[in-house]
Amino acid sequence: MAKTMAVNAGSSSLKFQLLEMPAEQVIAQGVIERIGMDDAIVTIKYGSEIEVERLVGNSEDDEHITFAKNGKGKKYENVLAIKDHQQAINFMLQKLTDLGIIQDFNEITGVGHRVVAGGEWFNHSVVVTDSVLEKIDRLADYAPLHNPANAMGIRAFQKLLPDALSVAVFDTSFHQSMPEENFLYSLPYEYYTRYGARKYGAHGTSHRYVASRAAEMLGKDLKSLKLITLHLGAGASITAIKDGKSLDTSMGFSPLAGVTMATRSGDVDPSLVYYIQEREGLSNDEMLNILNKKSGLLGLSTISSDMRDLLDVQDTNDHARLAVKIFINRIIKYIGQYIAEMGGVDAIVFTAGIGENSIPVRQAIVDKLNYFDVALDTEANKVRGKEIEISTKESRVKALLIPTNEELMIARDVESLK
Amino acid sequence: MAKTMAVNAGSSSLKFQLLEMPAEQVIAQGVIERIGMDDAIVTIKYGSEIEVERLVGNSEDDEHITFAKNGKGKKYENVLAIKDHQQAINFMLQKLTDLGIIQDFNEITGVGHRVVAGGEWFNHSVVVTDSVLEKIDRLADYAPLHNPANAMGIRAFQKLLPDALSVAVFDTSFHQSMPEENFLYSLPYEYYTRYGARKYGAHGTSHRYVASRAAEMLGKDLKSLKLITLHLGAGASITAIKDGKSLDTSMGFSPLAGVTMATRSGDVDPSLVYYIQEREGLSNDEMLNILNKKSGLLGLSTISSDMRDLLDVQDTNDHARLAVKIFINRIIKYIGQYIAEMGGVDAIVFTAGIGENSIPVRQAIVDKLNYFDVALDTEANKVRGKEIEISTKESRVKALLIPTNEELMIARDVESLK
Repeated sequence: MAKTMAVNAGSSSLKFQLLEMPAEQVIAQGVIERIGMDDAIVTIKYGSEIEVERLVGNSEDDEHITFAKNGKGKKYENVLAIKDHQQAINFMLQKLTDLGIIQDFNEITGVGHRVVAGGEWFNHSVVVTDSVLEKIDRLADYAPLHNPANAMGIRAFQKLLPDALSVAVFDTSFHQSMPEENFLYSLPYEYYTRYGARKYGAHGTSHRYVASRAAEMLGKDLKSLKLITLHLGAGASITAIKDGKSLDTSMGFSPLAGVTMATRSGDVDPSLVYYIQEREGLSNDEMLNILNKKSGLLGLSTISSDMRDLLDVQDTNDHARLAVKIFINRIIKYIGQYIAEMGGVDAIVFTAGIGENSIPVRQAIVDKLNYFDVALDTEANKVRGKEIEISTKESRVKALLIPTNEELMIARDVESLK
Repeated sequence: MAKTMAVNAGSSSLKFQLLEMPAEQVIAQGVIERIGMDDAIVTIKYGSEIEVERLVGNSEDDEHITFAKNGKGKKYENVLAIKDHQQAINFMLQKLTDLGIIQDFNEITGVGHRVVAGGEWFNHSVVVTDSVLEKIDRLADYAPLHNPANAMGIRAFQKLLPDALSVAVFDTSFHQSMPEENFLYSLPYEYYTRYGARKYGAHGTSHRYVASRAAEMLGKDLKSLKLITLHLGAGASITAIKDGKSLDTSMGFSPLAGVTMATRSGDVDPSLVYYIQEREGLSNDEMLNILNKKSGLLGLSTISSDMRDLLDVQDTNDHARLAVKIFINRIIKYIGQYIAEMGGVDAIVFTAGIGENSIPVRQAIVDKLNYFDVALDTEANKVRGKEIEISTKESRVKALLIPTNEELMIARDVESLK
């Protein structure tokens, strides 16, 4: 049977999921961390009933890799020196063979690579050619931390699995359908033509996946629906999907923009950024680092970037309560924007870490949207990580919980290009 | 009878309106431009039937001072050397006497001064004391171009009219009712306590005026209404008004944020600002200048910052059409945000230059909002600068055109503090 690997290569880590296709069954998944160190960590989970965890986040530092303690299946762990991605992948493939997960490297007939920035060159997933790889390299300007690592992963797999189909799946490509009034900023137009200064968005694979699942759950044609998909993880983005296409999304030129995130600020008046920078005596890079790493839930709460921590203490901690309130507030604003832009909405979809697991966050959001004729079924909402309709039967607008599955989407894209 | 003067002092200009109060009748209005030059220009319009023009904009360069050519009443014009604000005001008051508009300086019993930044110190208009003046000086950090000029105007009037009640009316004070989830950015909290890093908004006097008129037109108590007021001039801002208070507004820490404006960008991903800055080799100040003076309608269209010019050529000029489209698009997004935040809306109010005069802009906005149960009465909409309901009778949400009148609001504030 044909096996497909979904890969997310970071600068010092590599996450993968191996799927039997077209059966869409996960055979193994794992991660290699601390690549380049003497104490790199290899973890592989496998077996017939493994509990699937999301391993492909918005960036390598975006999602914590936590294997559920009560997970079924088997787990392999090792700490050893791994000097580079090539060696990491070689070790991993060898180990998959040793563990009997595959018999031969050649069973893996396709490898799908998550690539962060696809710019305006890629509006769908593509088979990797030399020209594609060169473009991914050139797009590093837009994702300096990610695209070079993604390209490194592609090259390493190509060497070890020269016969497998190599496919690039871009975080941005789904949003290439945005019309110019949504993707352009109100800046001098020449910056767009000269530097590609525009909105690209992110989390495209996730938004695309949950949108297609939402249509199936609702028993409707995706092309007939107006959806708002909320990818709420450490990185968070909200997308308006109309006629099956991304019409608008909250992340911008970079993943800094949009709603409040774990450590990212989301939208800020640029004048204020300069104002703070000047008073604090910070360089542009230092200020940008603060906006990316010290802001958001962490900056507001002063105690944690993790929504669970904040919810735990919000009854007694004003800062935590404030951070949660602002997180909800910004999401409501984007939902309102997109309802206005689309002239309505059929369903609002929750996904990713917070969206899948935080019962009170989903509750707060849906409760604030009653005006639009959606009401929460509080019993149905008492779940985590499960596909379910959480709005009441009477709601004209539906609220859905749909666990994302970027790996599956990547594997499907590989299949479709075979 | 008591006369009140509404004053807007800029760094090299001074605009005023003289009203008979409490009759609320405009007796004269005028402007002194190019203060500090040998060829300063003094213009005073007066007479029983003068056509009132708006003279108090968001900043001295914000609104063009255009006396309607077919205006009734009399007009005085002169070009002469005026070395400073003191001399400008002295000349103006003397001229008002010479022209018989006032018999004596002492008839002016109150002077209301527009002040741009009131920070968190002022949530309503106040009688100017030494302590108030000192605070206005200190708030220059937030409005370096405006507050010093506003303070200069206050001091000059105090010298010449020591017995008149001196009142400061702040652009920001109306927005001080915003709750913290709306006024705070998702930045490290310490920046708020240390630098007052938050949203202040602007155009407060205009939003407040049109909101109160909207309630009167609808025959309802302002406190029972959900309003969205669109102040669309060269500077533009949108405010959500609930229970008679500003709940949220589109301008931010500075007037740069929010919707697309004549030359200001409105919201932009800060990462992109740095990205462009680096590639263009610009200093922070240079970049900020581009965001303020070369962006918005001008930057997108590449031809004009004036909506009228763009509408004139949009059928044949792609850039002009794009700029208009984006202008409308951003307004729709903010309206959607505010409907979601308030959980509904009773009326949408158009005001200021574009809002009062642009029939196609109002049409495009209302047409995009049909989902919210508002429809345009196209016949009623064929007006400029006149108080009128422009939505159909059947519309559940009303659309209103209400010419703003910041001078009158200032004069009323003076009266209420007497």
